[in-house]
Amino acid sequence: MRVSFLGTGDAGGVPLYGCDCVACLRARADATYRRRNCSALIETRTTRILLDAGLTDLTDRFPPGSLSAILVTHFHPDHVQGLLHLRWGRGAPIPVFAPPDSEGCADLYKNHGLLQFQALAKFEAVTVGDLCITPLPLIHSRPTFGYAIEDPLGARFAYLTDTSGLPPRTESFLQAWQPDGMAIDCSHPPREQAPRNHNDFGRALDCLNTAGIGAKGGAKGGAKGGAESGAGWLTHLGHDFDQWEMGNPVKLPAGVCIARDGETVDLRGRLNKGAAQ
Amino acid sequence: MRVSFLGTGDAGGVPLYGCDCVACLRARADATYRRRNCSALIETRTTRILLDAGLTDLTDRFPPGSLSAILVTHFHPDHVQGLLHLRWGRGAPIPVFAPPDSEGCADLYKNHGLLQFQALAKFEAVTVGDLCITPLPLIHSRPTFGYAIEDPLGARFAYLTDTSGLPPRTESFLQAWQPDGMAIDCSHPPREQAPRNHNDFGRALDCLNTAGIGAKGGAKGGAKGGAESGAGWLTHLGHDFDQWEMGNPVKLPAGVCIARDGETVDLRGRLNKGAAQ
Repeated sequence: MRVSFLGTGDAGGVPLYGCDCVACLRARADATYRRRNCSALIETRTTRILLDAGLTDLTDRFPPGSLSAILVTHFHPDHVQGLLHLRWGRGAPIPVFAPPDSEGCADLYKNHGLLQFQALAKFEAVTVGDLCITPLPLIHSRPTFGYAIEDPLGARFAYLTDTSGLPPRTESFLQAWQPDGMAIDCSHPPREQAPRNHNDFGRALDCLNTAGIGAKGGAKGGAKGGAESGAGWLTHLGHDFDQWEMGNPVKLPAGVCIARDGETVDLRGRLNKGAAQ
Repeated sequence: MRVSFLGTGDAGGVPLYGCDCVACLRARADATYRRRNCSALIETRTTRILLDAGLTDLTDRFPPGSLSAILVTHFHPDHVQGLLHLRWGRGAPIPVFAPPDSEGCADLYKNHGLLQFQALAKFEAVTVGDLCITPLPLIHSRPTFGYAIEDPLGARFAYLTDTSGLPPRTESFLQAWQPDGMAIDCSHPPREQAPRNHNDFGRALDCLNTAGIGAKGGAKGGAKGGAESGAGWLTHLGHDFDQWEMGNPVKLPAGVCIARDGETVDLRGRLNKGAAQ
């Protein structure tokens, strides 16, 4: 499957309105450093899924019929704001899968228009096109799901925002599932105390480690490890993270990188790798 | 005062996502026919007020410190969606005046960030910079205010969206106030039955008529009338209005026109007019 990081920013984005820190100045001078509302696109030959809908230009980016479905992690505005406009269109309904959340956001449920909201249940996999998707509960201030997504060739991608750490059952799932790629909430630079709703840098690496990615001395509890271990992307990044990273260049664990808006990755699964060997 | 129509569309805008009617095709071919979320900018030499905040690029349009205040007509997403991002910025607080509405939109009240919400009371004027602003109740599905705005030279502008007709006290106010300019909700082409939450074409003209604008045979109940009568703009227009107007070119009453995105008008008041005579 192909994974495209459409946005890699936290709710305020980079540059943050009115901020003149070095990271915000850099992003104003060079648009390649901008971070828009966190979202990603998952594509196979037959299926195209938008992960979160906080970008406000969805009607321009995705012509009618171009999306198989939208997966929503949770109903905070920076993750669903783009739906507020998209809903008023004409044409075929767009399935929107989301965690059970009786409130939703603004009047999205009441005036859903084109959107067909469907609440998912934790760990109960659904199929969209040729993708198998398992909702994984996360730790955030609203009901929030990450998603474990597998394509027909066995490529496995986990998308986990927004979260502060991981619940034990989600950890167990990831230890057993061993994703080939995983994007993880890393809103903050290192902090002594755990932030309440988002990961800082250290906790983001811990989450990847749990899934056998970027582990010191090989995968933790996983079967693959070593050269076979997956790739990790830090995402949902705030301007203070970028500011910290500019002043403190860190050596990231093997296979882990800081995601950038517009970055695209072709993810191969274990079956594929086996066939190529 | 200078009035700029930043957006003149209804919630769906023109072109409507997925629609191939002649109006939507025209707007896709020629961006000057696009209609974005309904909003306007009011400027004097010292004061700059944004009327509604549904545009999602407010952080790009308005650098920190460039707005004296934001006036919100009501909390439907197409009128406040831009605040969902603007709030996260750094810098001086931005006063946001709005009707009393305990719900607001999404989590705007809870996480207001830069925004300082202040509920107004109907017919109780407030001063922002050198502008005097009187909230006028409208008829819509949520608590909604139009605004009667007067500059120090006596130029009077009424901005009235969203509404289906006008409440009697608002009518009386406008009959006495006699605006020099008035923008009115005209979401729909002519309809036999009154739409519930918005004006159709006929009812929009009736509202203007009440304020002495575009009246057949002179102003109704007003002192100015004739050459002295004000100017009217139809706004909050839907794609079906544009489609109807393309097929049925109408002769609009004198002084009344269909607003366009980006249109700018310098409005002079009666004192100014007197001085020029």
